Amino acid sequence: MEEKILELIEQKKFGELKSLLSEMNPADLAQVFEEVAEKDLPVIFRILPKELAAEVFVEMDSDMQQLLIEAFSDKELREVMDELFMDDTVDIIDEMPATVAKRILKATDANTRRMINQLLAYPDDSAGSIMTTEYIDLKKDMTVDSAFDRIRKIGFDTETIYACYVTDRSRHLLGIVSVKDLLLNPKDKVISEIMDENVISVNTLEDKEAVAMAFEKYDLLAMPVVDMEGRLVGIVTVDDAIDVMKEEVTEDIEKMAAILPSERSYFKTSVFETYKSRIPWLLLLMISATFTGAIISSFEAKLVAFSGLIAFIPMLMDTGGNSGSQASVTVIRSISLGDIEFGDIFKVLWKEIRVAFFCSLTLAVINYGKLIIIDKFLLKTFTGDPHAYLEIAVVCLTLFFTVIVAKIVGCTLPILAKKIGFDPAVMASPLITTIVDAISLIIYFTTATVILG
Amino acid sequence: MEEKILELIEQKKFGELKSLLSEMNPADLAQVFEEVAEKDLPVIFRILPKELAAEVFVEMDSDMQQLLIEAFSDKELREVMDELFMDDTVDIIDEMPATVAKRILKATDANTRRMINQLLAYPDDSAGSIMTTEYIDLKKDMTVDSAFDRIRKIGFDTETIYACYVTDRSRHLLGIVSVKDLLLNPKDKVISEIMDENVISVNTLEDKEAVAMAFEKYDLLAMPVVDMEGRLVGIVTVDDAIDVMKEEVTEDIEKMAAILPSERSYFKTSVFETYKSRIPWLLLLMISATFTGAIISSFEAKLVAFSGLIAFIPMLMDTGGNSGSQASVTVIRSISLGDIEFGDIFKVLWKEIRVAFFCSLTLAVINYGKLIIIDKFLLKTFTGDPHAYLEIAVVCLTLFFTVIVAKIVGCTLPILAKKIGFDPAVMASPLITTIVDAISLIIYFTTATVILG
Repeated sequence: MEEKILELIEQKKFGELKSLLSEMNPADLAQVFEEVAEKDLPVIFRILPKELAAEVFVEMDSDMQQLLIEAFSDKELREVMDELFMDDTVDIIDEMPATVAKRILKATDANTRRMINQLLAYPDDSAGSIMTTEYIDLKKDMTVDSAFDRIRKIGFDTETIYACYVTDRSRHLLGIVSVKDLLLNPKDKVISEIMDENVISVNTLEDKEAVAMAFEKYDLLAMPVVDMEGRLVGIVTVDDAIDVMKEEVTEDIEKMAAILPSERSYFKTSVFETYKSRIPWLLLLMISATFTGAIISSFEAKLVAFSGLIAFIPMLMDTGGNSGSQASVTVIRSISLGDIEFGDIFKVLWKEIRVAFFCSLTLAVINYGKLIIIDKFLLKTFTGDPHAYLEIAVVCLTLFFTVIVAKIVGCTLPILAKKIGFDPAVMASPLITTIVDAISLIIYFTTATVILG
Repeated sequence: MEEKILELIEQKKFGELKSLLSEMNPADLAQVFEEVAEKDLPVIFRILPKELAAEVFVEMDSDMQQLLIEAFSDKELREVMDELFMDDTVDIIDEMPATVAKRILKATDANTRRMINQLLAYPDDSAGSIMTTEYIDLKKDMTVDSAFDRIRKIGFDTETIYACYVTDRSRHLLGIVSVKDLLLNPKDKVISEIMDENVISVNTLEDKEAVAMAFEKYDLLAMPVVDMEGRLVGIVTVDDAIDVMKEEVTEDIEKMAAILPSERSYFKTSVFETYKSRIPWLLLLMISATFTGAIISSFEAKLVAFSGLIAFIPMLMDTGGNSGSQASVTVIRSISLGDIEFGDIFKVLWKEIRVAFFCSLTLAVINYGKLIIIDKFLLKTFTGDPHAYLEIAVVCLTLFFTVIVAKIVGCTLPILAKKIGFDPAVMASPLITTIVDAISLIIYFTTATVILG
């Protein structure tokens, strides 16, 4: 399909192209347009029917949007902007350089412009920043029939018609009626009799992640957003909530991998931006690894004496790190799913200690078996003198205690971080690993000192 | 609220309780019910109006559902089951022990039972396993008005009424009409004139993750599912798609932390199950750390001679591991968002090499500065003889090369894994760390041998 379109562009068969493109889905079209040469883009875009053009425009990434806006005449710009929903307009303006943003604002009427400026003023992570202002509002003394009249009148310009909001004269939110309710009730029924007054709504300043979680919990299609006085100012639709979920997950995953979150996709982020998002944690973790270095230095003389112990350092550190990150990542994910709260800390701790006990026992036993069977009998790297047995004991004991400590640290740090207002996700693998490294070395050298003297 | 409810239960004030609970949202009620004593649960549940009771039942976790089913009379069970949508019924049966499942099946009529058995037969990860069979079907020669009549007739029992599917006599899917289209068109318009024939549909055997991604891409509220012959057999609604997204993300995150994915939430998973999900990778990674041990052993004599080098092992290994996991996690997430495909491998590689170059340069320079300023002048742990300068050079050079190799390994392995049919997520931090550990030690010792002789 994509190849055929590019071929038609090449051959300038615009008639055929038009009928082909008009049948396609906006999301697919936006994807195909990514492959179109920049110079052809405005021409091809103009082929599309107006409504579809606006839908495709919304699906494009901001570089392409900017390219098109710069190619548009003022009239064309106005036509596209007229078709957009308020939340999409605001998103687009947010991404544009100041001059382009100004041109867009100039292409809208005074009323829209005022609304856009209001939406732009909401904080980045708030419900206000993702809501749209086009929704169906009803009055409580309307009948079902007059409600349908209103939907027919303004429905074309609202992002969803399926959830209708009942407000009083000063726009206070009184209740909600779904189109399903309207359809399944007699035409002369009054709205106040069928509306649900138990509305789940959010404040404009609510964190958008909490909004997305409410969609999931209550299986909503749209959520009303009210201001401090309880007046309805907009709605968030489920497609936008899904986008927020996706962004938040990416952000969490990046934080867990010691990356500063970025908003753009992989190839849209420049090398320098990627560098900037990765170097801070790398530096911090490198510097903090100085502690592990200091611990080793202080034990250097003994390590030289019992040089067999050096070879086990990576295995002990890695196993500790892996055990810790298993616990921390599980807890971080459970916190963001709402399954674990601060009050659960002892319950979590008790569970992790038991899991850690069985894990560490298994690892220590298998490690012992491996040392005896493989290293002693197969590889003969193990001398078998009493001294070597003591070294094995040191390694296995260290393994046992390290895994337990690692799981305890791994499960408590994210919960504590959350409590004091930090993002639990930054307490994931890399930071836990660095902490557990130091602990595992201390355990190793302490055990070695006790057993080997 | 929760406390008030528990108090009313305690005081057996069922009248007051009924009016309070009837006002609440099913999701909130299910949450409150978690706190109710097991013996009170059936009593409280019976207070609820039938429809609400069924909605709350769906939101409960399977342990509570089982408890209630076992307390239900056959008649009560039939009443609850009658209110459920097919997909929810199937989910519940899937979770129940065989005897309970049999009782549920016995409580349904022959027709429903046949349908349930059909849905149960779909593979676990397929579109068929998450779809429901209650949807609005229209015929193409209906008018808008007769379409509304049909919606009024069957709409109460369908999971969504907003997307209506136009089928022919043998149930082939011909097109889709939204209730918005119906409302915004004249009553005598014929469906075939307003339906969209360009329907996005999936096959019953399609991976449910792909279905969820389509919802996000096309901003859908529901997606029709067809069989091999293109006949409509069910629909997936957006709330179920959101659940799939959430599950898939949890699964990915668990895999990235070297945990075998589990389906149950943290506290619902027993200690032994958690142990089983964590120990396999811990064991595998511990055993594979034998290689790093062997590398160190083979260099043991030199390490004893240049004992200053030992202290840098953790820092080099950790920095390498962190660099590698940053690259791998970024690439894994981009693959699952559809931003990176196999064909992009060289583009990714080229980007990562440049990012790695700048990262490694920064780290090496800062590490050099730290060794000179802190270790030499402040801590005086650095002797300052020519030999010590060579050691610093070895450490910084190793850092430089390790970071570059780590990023290259980190970005390519997930893409290759995906290509050969593995899940890219298992190529995340822990596995990359183990591989990078071995590589960084080889680089370290090789550099040391070359420079220190």
